[in-house]
Amino acid sequence: MGAELTVYDTSASPELDPALALHRGGKLEVRSTVPLRGPSDLSLAYTPGVARASSAIADDPELVHELTWKANAVAVVTDGSAVLGLGNIGPEAALPVMEGKGLLLKELAGIDAVPICLNCPDLSELVETVRRLTPAFGAVSLAEIAYPRCYEALRRLRHDLAVPVFQDDEHGAAIVVAAALLNAARLTGRTISETTVVVGGCSAVGVAVTRMLLALDVADVIMCDRHGAVHVDRNDLTPFEFELAVSTNLAGARGDVADVLRGADVFVGGPGSKLSDDALAGMATDAIVFTLNTPGPEIDPEVVWQHAAVVATARGDHANQISGLLALPGIVRGTLDVRATVVTDDMKLAAAQALADLVGDDLAPEYVIPGAFDRRVVPAVAGAVAHRARADGVAQR
Amino acid sequence: MGAELTVYDTSASPELDPALALHRGGKLEVRSTVPLRGPSDLSLAYTPGVARASSAIADDPELVHELTWKANAVAVVTDGSAVLGLGNIGPEAALPVMEGKGLLLKELAGIDAVPICLNCPDLSELVETVRRLTPAFGAVSLAEIAYPRCYEALRRLRHDLAVPVFQDDEHGAAIVVAAALLNAARLTGRTISETTVVVGGCSAVGVAVTRMLLALDVADVIMCDRHGAVHVDRNDLTPFEFELAVSTNLAGARGDVADVLRGADVFVGGPGSKLSDDALAGMATDAIVFTLNTPGPEIDPEVVWQHAAVVATARGDHANQISGLLALPGIVRGTLDVRATVVTDDMKLAAAQALADLVGDDLAPEYVIPGAFDRRVVPAVAGAVAHRARADGVAQR
Repeated sequence: MGAELTVYDTSASPELDPALALHRGGKLEVRSTVPLRGPSDLSLAYTPGVARASSAIADDPELVHELTWKANAVAVVTDGSAVLGLGNIGPEAALPVMEGKGLLLKELAGIDAVPICLNCPDLSELVETVRRLTPAFGAVSLAEIAYPRCYEALRRLRHDLAVPVFQDDEHGAAIVVAAALLNAARLTGRTISETTVVVGGCSAVGVAVTRMLLALDVADVIMCDRHGAVHVDRNDLTPFEFELAVSTNLAGARGDVADVLRGADVFVGGPGSKLSDDALAGMATDAIVFTLNTPGPEIDPEVVWQHAAVVATARGDHANQISGLLALPGIVRGTLDVRATVVTDDMKLAAAQALADLVGDDLAPEYVIPGAFDRRVVPAVAGAVAHRARADGVAQR
Repeated sequence: MGAELTVYDTSASPELDPALALHRGGKLEVRSTVPLRGPSDLSLAYTPGVARASSAIADDPELVHELTWKANAVAVVTDGSAVLGLGNIGPEAALPVMEGKGLLLKELAGIDAVPICLNCPDLSELVETVRRLTPAFGAVSLAEIAYPRCYEALRRLRHDLAVPVFQDDEHGAAIVVAAALLNAARLTGRTISETTVVVGGCSAVGVAVTRMLLALDVADVIMCDRHGAVHVDRNDLTPFEFELAVSTNLAGARGDVADVLRGADVFVGGPGSKLSDDALAGMATDAIVFTLNTPGPEIDPEVVWQHAAVVATARGDHANQISGLLALPGIVRGTLDVRATVVTDDMKLAAAQALADLVGDDLAPEYVIPGAFDRRVVPAVAGAVAHRARADGVAQR
């Protein structure tokens, strides 16, 4: 979608820039859901009636999920350390993005999302602050936090919190990649368990995609960063990459992306990944290529189509858009609906399968994944996630 | 208003209790203020358009007040340590009250208030957590925090934060008491600077009222707690009481409430204060008595009327209701409107005068303060506060 802005004046003047004009005054508001017509309403919603609700929760803490907004309220948390492609621009400058996530969660999935932009340069402070905040929220969604601290925060919060913790890449792009891969494999006659995937770019997305591919039980994944293939003998990996190195690159391949791409079925390129015409040419017949760099893909999709049977990008102006919006709102919705405290791998796989299934008989090289505005997506994903949570015994209602 | 609940079944069953039924699912929601009809709207409100807003703020931090909800968003913060009359019931059980404050701030003054219920038994943690939260909020309002920690939190946050910090009693009841007193003094022919006041109950309300009365420049205030009159020789005072002891009880009066009430013009009774028929009888002619205990006043208002020219209570079913709602929403509104970073004594006095002035020529013993649903209140208070902030040079726009 990056191209759309080129028609606008690029100065920072709100008067000339439609995007800035739209942002004036922000994009969210807090509203009452109960009437306040006069003293009688006030006596129910505020004193003295509100004391009945507070007392009831004090007596039975479970009632906070019934008598407050908690069951539908999500704290969307950032420290502003990795905002879009803009980098570490801080919590204030991250706020428009967080408001955007909030409005999408509401419009797409009816979730009340509050932007929480934290001034927490230290990771332990961020984790501790989120822990202190959770009494009033039913879930936490981490976003725009730099890699690898985002996963360290996720790991520690999952350990600490009684509510589920989501993360944009793990519950967004990674799920959608899996869904698109399920359909692309079907289209190209592949069995997932015999499919090999190269993941370019060891970023938050790259790690999330690799984990999801392992959960999907592909034959093998080879992660690549700017130093080439990731393997257990490397000593420059983050703990998250090392953990994945143990269960990926089973043949111990060495070399750069072009080397490991030779004969591979699938390439998934995250931010910062590189891809050449020659490297593409070496892939297996009917290759599957997802180029997820934003705002622009790492290589012109038209070129990729010459080498691959299925191509997906992160952009809305090309076929097969891999957008986290296809997964996150539905996964959060489904998790909240049954009050699951964790999101299991099974729930994520169910989300991916539900998303893939929406394509159905319309499956084609240019249609392996539903569009971002397909109204069937959120209910289908939410339903599958809720069903699976109940089956896995992690639902509390 | 306490009496209204007596007609309801008092079991905790939501099916039988209208107050609990109304609370089901909570009382607030987060909504989008911009359209999201399709890809074109998405490209402005989310990627890539949102990057324009984030970049603009990264380049000029002041723009966070223009391009996000910050300028109208208030964090309503509690630790649940003093919720209504229910005591330290914790952050979850406080949430219905915080949602109630949120809905009132929205309905009465158009403010987007987010309930922030913190699991922070330690005061330093609470202060630090609020400090980390403020990038996305234009103000902080402290509520339902136990005395005296509420004032310690207030003192430290005011020192730390670049946004204004409000507190329920200081910017609520205390302002309304001042307004009611201005009118009651007018009605009984008193000059404020020659009026003596006894404040019963050294609580959050008692301290806030005493400070406001000193700002109003009354002749003298004598605070009383359960050990009697507060004076500088006592060694059992909180730091906040000691600070006030220095500038109150100028004659060094000793004794209990009944002793110091002899000849006093005004009594303001906070939570826990005691008042007897005899003590009232000893007050000056045309005495002014505000009994602010909730849910019930410390003494039957009918009895008080036999001894006083003007009586006010905290209840909506009696004349002259002293409700913090008459002040706080308008003060927050006015402060946000001009982006003041502090609330000066002059701004508080302007709020009290504006509130008193609304009564105008209708002034009568049973009408010294406007009703809680008088639609003139918030605009009048907000306008006066904003005007005064500009005059005091604390407005940033």
